[in-house]
Amino acid sequence: MIIAIANAFRLTKRLLQGFTVWHKVSSLNDRTIQTFKTPVFEIMNENEGEVRDFIKVSHEKLSTDEVSQLVISPSCGAVSMFIGTTRDSFDGKRVTRLEYEAYTPMAETEIKKIFLGMRQKWPSIKHIAVHHRLGLVPITEASVIIAVSSPHRRESLEAVQYCIDTLKATVPIWKKEIYDEEKYSWKENKECFWT
Amino acid sequence: MIIAIANAFRLTKRLLQGFTVWHKVSSLNDRTIQTFKTPVFEIMNENEGEVRDFIKVSHEKLSTDEVSQLVISPSCGAVSMFIGTTRDSFDGKRVTRLEYEAYTPMAETEIKKIFLGMRQKWPSIKHIAVHHRLGLVPITEASVIIAVSSPHRRESLEAVQYCIDTLKATVPIWKKEIYDEEKYSWKENKECFWT
Repeated sequence: MIIAIANAFRLTKRLLQGFTVWHKVSSLNDRTIQTFKTPVFEIMNENEGEVRDFIKVSHEKLSTDEVSQLVISPSCGAVSMFIGTTRDSFDGKRVTRLEYEAYTPMAETEIKKIFLGMRQKWPSIKHIAVHHRLGLVPITEASVIIAVSSPHRRESLEAVQYCIDTLKATVPIWKKEIYDEEKYSWKENKECFWT
Repeated sequence: MIIAIANAFRLTKRLLQGFTVWHKVSSLNDRTIQTFKTPVFEIMNENEGEVRDFIKVSHEKLSTDEVSQLVISPSCGAVSMFIGTTRDSFDGKRVTRLEYEAYTPMAETEIKKIFLGMRQKWPSIKHIAVHHRLGLVPITEASVIIAVSSPHRRESLEAVQYCIDTLKATVPIWKKEIYDEEKYSWKENKECFWT
């Protein structure tokens, strides 16, 4: 009897844990590959060898907690992250905000290629998430958040660095810098090989 | 008149932004160097050349958002992070949770030394934060979160890697692994040079 009650309590707790995590539905305006947040019970019960890729390129404000939560895995001891934020200056000019534009399907295709490269170079990495914001991104807010999980730290640390370097070099996302004096300039990503 | 209203609106908005960010008071039970979250207006008005160090070693659950927010700076385009989480296995044994213990003042002193080393190696890095949790840390929850901001990404990416490697090697924090079959073992950090 006591065991039955304890089991019922455990099951209820687990279900509640699962449902207390917010699920985000995809927006019709944004192309999103996987936008939902993984529920706690799903994280705890993931299959061995299962890996997940998350890509979101949208106009939504980004959340560090949300992106980190996507890649957390019971089989991993490490999550490495990179957050690109809007700076207040560029080449000595005062920037008030940045604006990003992308041809989203092409950007997502290039990000998928980066994921493939990462999985070839570091086969032990588990989940990967890249969220990129479009439109206006005010000073100190994030334009891109990358998170990678791995059983040990070395792989995810190296993979995050590779991911942001390659993203800057290959993904077709343009930024418009808006300066203090109401001037602005559209820029190709200067690290891009394809420009 | 219109300008006066616009200025009043801007000031009110800025103050509201500042006060909507949660301030955390330090706990008597935990030794905390700087526990408060930097308000938005403080972030936006930080002095040029000002750098901040945040260290917290406590029994509280860690927050990725909180730690990332501590280091964000208008003069920086990059925040790099590392999150150490509890894995479900070690050497083939099923771990149910980890427990951390530390002599807190000594741990904090060693973390401060790491910060000095980071600032010598990468003089351009801006703010650094290390939060370490003590006590029980269940599977998938964070035991340590590190965040570093820098104007450009290279410095913060390298500094975070150095920080976690050196922390594992020099900071006196012990972990007790609790296995499925109710067994456990206390361990020195096997990477520590001082063991």
